[in-house]
Amino acid sequence: MGTVITGGTIVTAADTYRADVRIEGERIARIGFDLAEPGDALIDATGKLVMPGAIDVHTHLDMPFGGTTSCDDFTTGHLAALHGGTTMHIDFAQQPRGGSLQDGLDTWHAKANGRAVMDYGFHMIVTDARPEVVEELDSMVAQGVPSFKLFLAYPGVFMVDDDTLFAVMERARDNGGLVMMHCENGVVIDHLVQRAVAEGHAGEPGWHYRTRPATLEGESTERAIALAKVAGAPLYVVHVTCTEAVDAITRARAEGQRVWGESCIQYFFHTQDDLDRPDFEGAKFVCSPPLRTEADQARLWDAIRRDELEVISTDHCPFRFADQKTLGADDFRAIPNGMPVIEERMSLLSTAVHAGHLSWNRLVEVASTNPAKLFGCYPQKGAIAPGSDADIVVWDADAEYTWTVDRIHSAVDYTTFEGTPVKGIASHVFSRGELVIADGAATDAATPGRGRFVHRRTFEHARPGEYLGNVTTAEPTHA
Amino acid sequence: MGTVITGGTIVTAADTYRADVRIEGERIARIGFDLAEPGDALIDATGKLVMPGAIDVHTHLDMPFGGTTSCDDFTTGHLAALHGGTTMHIDFAQQPRGGSLQDGLDTWHAKANGRAVMDYGFHMIVTDARPEVVEELDSMVAQGVPSFKLFLAYPGVFMVDDDTLFAVMERARDNGGLVMMHCENGVVIDHLVQRAVAEGHAGEPGWHYRTRPATLEGESTERAIALAKVAGAPLYVVHVTCTEAVDAITRARAEGQRVWGESCIQYFFHTQDDLDRPDFEGAKFVCSPPLRTEADQARLWDAIRRDELEVISTDHCPFRFADQKTLGADDFRAIPNGMPVIEERMSLLSTAVHAGHLSWNRLVEVASTNPAKLFGCYPQKGAIAPGSDADIVVWDADAEYTWTVDRIHSAVDYTTFEGTPVKGIASHVFSRGELVIADGAATDAATPGRGRFVHRRTFEHARPGEYLGNVTTAEPTHA
Amino acid sequence: MGTVITGGTIVTAADTYRADVRIEGERIARIGFDLAEPGDALIDATGKLVMPGAIDVHTHLDMPFGGTTSCDDFTTGHLAALHGGTTMHIDFAQQPRGGSLQDGLDTWHAKANGRAVMDYGFHMIVTDARPEVVEELDSMVAQGVPSFKLFLAYPGVFMVDDDTLFAVMERARDNGGLVMMHCENGVVIDHLVQRAVAEGHAGEPGWHYRTRPATLEGESTERAIALAKVAGAPLYVVHVTCTEAVDAITRARAEGQRVWGESCIQYFFHTQDDLDRPDFEGAKFVCSPPLRTEADQARLWDAIRRDELEVISTDHCPFRFADQKTLGADDFRAIPNGMPVIEERMSLLSTAVHAGHLSWNRLVEVASTNPAKLFGCYPQKGAIAPGSDADIVVWDADAEYTWTVDRIHSAVDYTTFEGTPVKGIASHVFSRGELVIADGAATDAATPGRGRFVHRRTFEHARPGEYLGNVTTAEPTHA
Amino acid sequence: MGTVITGGTIVTAADTYRADVRIEGERIARIGFDLAEPGDALIDATGKLVMPGAIDVHTHLDMPFGGTTSCDDFTTGHLAALHGGTTMHIDFAQQPRGGSLQDGLDTWHAKANGRAVMDYGFHMIVTDARPEVVEELDSMVAQGVPSFKLFLAYPGVFMVDDDTLFAVMERARDNGGLVMMHCENGVVIDHLVQRAVAEGHAGEPGWHYRTRPATLEGESTERAIALAKVAGAPLYVVHVTCTEAVDAITRARAEGQRVWGESCIQYFFHTQDDLDRPDFEGAKFVCSPPLRTEADQARLWDAIRRDELEVISTDHCPFRFADQKTLGADDFRAIPNGMPVIEERMSLLSTAVHAGHLSWNRLVEVASTNPAKLFGCYPQKGAIAPGSDADIVVWDADAEYTWTVDRIHSAVDYTTFEGTPVKGIASHVFSRGELVIADGAATDAATPGRGRFVHRRTFEHARPGEYLGNVTTAEPTHA
Repeated sequence: MGTVITGGTIVTAADTYRADVRIEGERIARIGFDLAEPGDALIDATGKLVMPGAIDVHTHLDMPFGGTTSCDDFTTGHLAALHGGTTMHIDFAQQPRGGSLQDGLDTWHAKANGRAVMDYGFHMIVTDARPEVVEELDSMVAQGVPSFKLFLAYPGVFMVDDDTLFAVMERARDNGGLVMMHCENGVVIDHLVQRAVAEGHAGEPGWHYRTRPATLEGESTERAIALAKVAGAPLYVVHVTCTEAVDAITRARAEGQRVWGESCIQYFFHTQDDLDRPDFEGAKFVCSPPLRTEADQARLWDAIRRDELEVISTDHCPFRFADQKTLGADDFRAIPNGMPVIEERMSLLSTAVHAGHLSWNRLVEVASTNPAKLFGCYPQKGAIAPGSDADIVVWDADAEYTWTVDRIHSAVDYTTFEGTPVKGIASHVFSRGELVIADGAATDAATPGRGRFVHRRTFEHARPGEYLGNVTTAEPTHA
Repeated sequence: MGTVITGGTIVTAADTYRADVRIEGERIARIGFDLAEPGDALIDATGKLVMPGAIDVHTHLDMPFGGTTSCDDFTTGHLAALHGGTTMHIDFAQQPRGGSLQDGLDTWHAKANGRAVMDYGFHMIVTDARPEVVEELDSMVAQGVPSFKLFLAYPGVFMVDDDTLFAVMERARDNGGLVMMHCENGVVIDHLVQRAVAEGHAGEPGWHYRTRPATLEGESTERAIALAKVAGAPLYVVHVTCTEAVDAITRARAEGQRVWGESCIQYFFHTQDDLDRPDFEGAKFVCSPPLRTEADQARLWDAIRRDELEVISTDHCPFRFADQKTLGADDFRAIPNGMPVIEERMSLLSTAVHAGHLSWNRLVEVASTNPAKLFGCYPQKGAIAPGSDADIVVWDADAEYTWTVDRIHSAVDYTTFEGTPVKGIASHVFSRGELVIADGAATDAATPGRGRFVHRRTFEHARPGEYLGNVTTAEPTHA
Repeated sequence: MGTVITGGTIVTAADTYRADVRIEGERIARIGFDLAEPGDALIDATGKLVMPGAIDVHTHLDMPFGGTTSCDDFTTGHLAALHGGTTMHIDFAQQPRGGSLQDGLDTWHAKANGRAVMDYGFHMIVTDARPEVVEELDSMVAQGVPSFKLFLAYPGVFMVDDDTLFAVMERARDNGGLVMMHCENGVVIDHLVQRAVAEGHAGEPGWHYRTRPATLEGESTERAIALAKVAGAPLYVVHVTCTEAVDAITRARAEGQRVWGESCIQYFFHTQDDLDRPDFEGAKFVCSPPLRTEADQARLWDAIRRDELEVISTDHCPFRFADQKTLGADDFRAIPNGMPVIEERMSLLSTAVHAGHLSWNRLVEVASTNPAKLFGCYPQKGAIAPGSDADIVVWDADAEYTWTVDRIHSAVDYTTFEGTPVKGIASHVFSRGELVIADGAATDAATPGRGRFVHRRTFEHARPGEYLGNVTTAEPTHA
Repeated sequence: MGTVITGGTIVTAADTYRADVRIEGERIARIGFDLAEPGDALIDATGKLVMPGAIDVHTHLDMPFGGTTSCDDFTTGHLAALHGGTTMHIDFAQQPRGGSLQDGLDTWHAKANGRAVMDYGFHMIVTDARPEVVEELDSMVAQGVPSFKLFLAYPGVFMVDDDTLFAVMERARDNGGLVMMHCENGVVIDHLVQRAVAEGHAGEPGWHYRTRPATLEGESTERAIALAKVAGAPLYVVHVTCTEAVDAITRARAEGQRVWGESCIQYFFHTQDDLDRPDFEGAKFVCSPPLRTEADQARLWDAIRRDELEVISTDHCPFRFADQKTLGADDFRAIPNGMPVIEERMSLLSTAVHAGHLSWNRLVEVASTNPAKLFGCYPQKGAIAPGSDADIVVWDADAEYTWTVDRIHSAVDYTTFEGTPVKGIASHVFSRGELVIADGAATDAATPGRGRFVHRRTFEHARPGEYLGNVTTAEPTHA
């Protein structure tokens, strides 16, 4: 007894064609026509797109930051994601400073256990890289966590020095891990922040972006790329926001270096001017790196169009406006960094397709297939293919509506897209074969605890300079 | 009663996964597991790749040139193609100077009728663009020939002036046709050729390339791109061979222009030095634009890696060494331009995958899916998808052998790849559901006359600056 | 008995220093302090700059065009030039179609003879390059006319085909001549013009620029550069106006090609919007290539700043508004192309120095020293150095005034800079030692017939890729 | 009673002409012909070039490093410089860690006092930038030391962190100082060095360059440029050696940033392969950044040709091979970094002119005029102009000879150019009007103590993005 999705148009990262999909158990069984067998459930997708569920490789659920904790846990965050068409995410476990990576991983497994509604994985944030910690990276790989994030921002909190970074890169080169970098020059930013405060700007959220110029993201990106080149390690630059950083990545790739870039959907839709909104509204838009200019948005769209960036994720990290963002009411340094985006992402990408910024195939590529390939869970995830997990979204591409806080399922109390009209909605969502969203609403199947940890494989390094579209996956088969 | 290809790994332009394929009649019916029904034929593809049949969008079968005719007709050329894993091609019909496009199209239909073994289409070469000829372009589109080729080379034979070119571009912009350009500055080349002959080099085939410098291909490519920009028309540059031309295309795309480029597989494997081989052997390598340098080869591979070119075709145009190439024994100007490549292409691309130049997915993209999308026959062709024509190649990627003239199926008497070791061979090939190659040999089904003309749709123009990977096809569905 | 210029600050293309200059006869004798001898005339330049007289290498005096003749002859044009601080120009002699170069040169010598007030030279416009004409180029060199201009614009009038152009380039490579190119694709422009007229725009001067897009100047520039590269000849691109053309030149130079570029001062100050001025006022701004956009102006200033262009000249070609521009009152095709700039140039450059676009040294370089070096009359002209011709301008850099038609000395009846405030004026001008402008007014010495033809040497080609600043002049000495 | 240099050809950064020069006292009095007065000394420069004496803005005389001291003091170093045609240098005074800038300046004044044979200036090396040290920078400017050098290399010795660097840049922006950066990522280099030693390479000088890859110079250069951009400060990058660093500078300039670059002559003539010479000979070539590849040399020559670098200096820092370089006989980390070049520079540049790499004018520009302008002593130095100090070199451009250790006047015991043939020698050298080198040999006038400290002015910042050739000097006059 299975489920057949009928009448829809299948969209993969390369192909678009009319066919039905039959699900058996947790996986896709067949693609074709006339697939229904007696007892099968039927989902009518006529006039809709059938795509692999989106994957969000950059989220922060239940994350301590600046004296508070991001307000979505693995239940509310997952429900928001599923409503938006996202069926898997990879969150960031975090090494406690001075502690072991295992400590961090255990803590994050505990956060997800029993709460997860959809499948999830973890990256590991390395905050201090003592020799034994560098060695411990191998154990992370063995436990299905083959991606390590480091920061060149947030001195005293997350920032590592060049020596630590280089040591981790060398280890990743050898154990197959992928280094993920937050690139901003935290030292100079702190210098600028202190001066801004001294000059009396503490109460203005807009000084968040004024003290984090794009030039310093560009510099830091260049640095990470240079070190990765010397180390011989592949590199994944997270949340690229500006021309300078895109250009740095593009130049490195042109010379054959294995560098990939991610941006987040909010950088394509919001600008730094949003931080200057009155009545502390700007605080809703505080994230790092900060929102940039319209010129940077244009460069980002170009990068998506030209295959210069591989992934569009969210950096979903929600803090309530009422009682969390307000921690920084008098001092912009204390505004928790982050915004809620996990649910809105796919609707915005869909709107961008209608606006001509990218094709449906490219949408699937940046939102699902590339993330799965880069982070070692393809073709289990990220594909409409027999044998793949039946993580499927039936997308009603023509549905038009406007985002308001009432529509969102996150535990947060605002959306930065309040009033933004979009086009495209997840009408039905399958997670490992179960229908968890039907006609846009969560079903009874969408219960905490059903989500599973995805043990990811080591990233099989692309050959020097290859773009992701050209990568031969290490283990192309399943089933 | 159908056919099931079992045990293989399906490779599309984006995906790679283990699954079986069931063919019913002329089309792919299902993809999945356990697909066989009673009476089905089974093809064991275990350990092999299952890919959409290759499409060769640049061939010259049975083509008059310089007082002789290319030696493959639509039967021998098709058999060679099928053995090599190619299941469709688009040949060039040619307007007789002073005549109508319809004259040319009728002539070429007659060449193919009754002889074709596989499916084929036609582009239309425009040699003179009187106002009524420009109007006639619409009729070509209506007859399934929505691509028009013009030359900036061969003055007095094919070359058109900028005014003609521009008029055709404007018409193509309006009727949905795609202008294809051969870019070399024929006027200056003639100047150089005449001087070379005057200086006594007529007897040296190597002066073919010495009189056709890459700079003049670059110039001509820039010109075609500029005119297309002013006309507002999309452009497809055929057989790009050199750094200058790739750079021109890349720059135009970076600024959002709809320009696509094709190269041919021989430009990645041979160099101009081959034209200097003694004993007139160099004549085997005479084609236009000429073979270039190793530096140009590196640039071409980069372009494939970076998605700067969309298609790798062949410009297959065979002339026998014994009695056709020798027309130019004393005068390199009289050597018929062209070489046989239609059968060797896929084996060379496969070898390049093993060498790390591209992935299997990218091979499918440049050899099959992109050609189908650009030339208006996707997803009928170019896809492994239910509803698509069952043009399928089962590729034995690990088969190693060496090209010799004895292996090839063209009517020509040499291969330029004589002695070249390759890795990868078409073990089984389906053409519209019929098994025409089995275990590397033509079956009884591979009979002249079974091939059909493919009525291609107008190319639905990509939005300005979009790369092909991002194109939303106009009619994404079939069946 | 000589003349001493005292108290001024000498400005050369590299140096700036306080010193006096003593003139004896036609030449500069000494630079230093306390140079006056009994009987010397003294010119007080305190607070002023002492610079080599400007050279204008692109002018059209007494030139037939479109059924009329540019309204300045060699007397009125020279007086305008001298008032503006220009002490030498190079005009264009023109081969009559079907006639000899000598015919053209003789005609232009006759125009200048007896009328010239300052020194002058000639370039030769080649309109048709029959073999005997190509040979005749050597004779031009021998007669002191070592620069040949060709057009890719104006089909049927000046335009040459690629074969002619290439033949002239090869001859120039051998005889030391410098090929100067007007780069616009005249064929496509004619196509656009005809359509514009057919669509009813004949009466609108603004369609002059709408039918001459920058893309076609860029294309043509690329073509000229490519042909020069293949020919092995140096190239001078005249009146560069747009980003596309500057970029083409810059790329060629980066690869070591000997290409130099000139722009004209009006392209830095006017835009295409000026052609849309009502009441036929736009006709005053009709020149080819047309005025461009503000973005192009910014690119031109960048090019001056980065040494990507060598010369700023004028293309001075005045036609009276009252009875000459009006030839095109009903048909923009018939508006004589050209505008008066010879007098205004230096004041505009001076204003640009005050605005921070370039330094005084760079002003001297682009307006005087580079022209003299490139066109074979350095250091006779273009230098403040003992032994050089005493062509000197004492520049009052702080004088502020506004251009009006009443101020200009050309025979034309308007200035496009009407109402434009400028800063800087020629207070005293010496031409070969004679004071021809004193306190801003022509002296009795400024008489027709005193100007002499400058027999220019062959351009000693810079080494491949060298910028002009690096050129070792062939004959560095004089005296 | 003066001195007249007769018969020579004067070469400035822009002009080349035949004229005599009369010196009165310490300065140039007149340029012209027939300048001799009764009692004048005459120097016959017939057939020779008369150029401003070279300025070397990057030297380390009498400098403690790694437990020893560079072996030239201000007497031997000056005599070597003068024999080579260099008449002024700027050495590096050094803040003692934890001490004041004044301490460092006093120490270096003491080194020069009584020993200097030619004029000299000081830059100030900042090793630690406590707030009071940042304030003390203003005092340095007041004392004629308006240039501050910082290192991103040599952790624990010279290296500063980004915060220090940024603070100094901001102060320099305000007080008119020029920040000079040694750009190499010292942290990662140390990582590589430690591993190399651990792997047993301590005894191989070639590991000096293997542990200092060009990528890390490029990264560091990008970082310095980015910080300077954010700080709004101009930047001078010292000893640029590689493609990556040149490209970074060129990109910044293209966007209008005030960044200038220096290279040293040895990087154009030696390669990293020289460090692999047997018998510890490689140690003679140990300097930082290390020598690079032939490809980098080509890029450097391009940069000189295209005005992408402003200065060619020496980083002269001699250590005897016999008893100083040998400190690192067993451990390449202990080899004192540096080589002797102060005398050889001009002969190598002259040889490069003959080879076609640059013109004589450009030689004067990069070796004398640009250094004087950038470092605030123009036109006192760096010009052949009345009123300028009579620091003049009479250059015999055709003299051919071969460098051997016997020819050099430094206290060092080797030259890296042993056996290198060169063309061009200083036949006569004037220092502030005194003939200190005659016919290639020091005169009695060349006595210790005659040299004077040059109190340099604040660098008047060029406008954003201006190239040096376009800079309007703040105080263009003297006398």
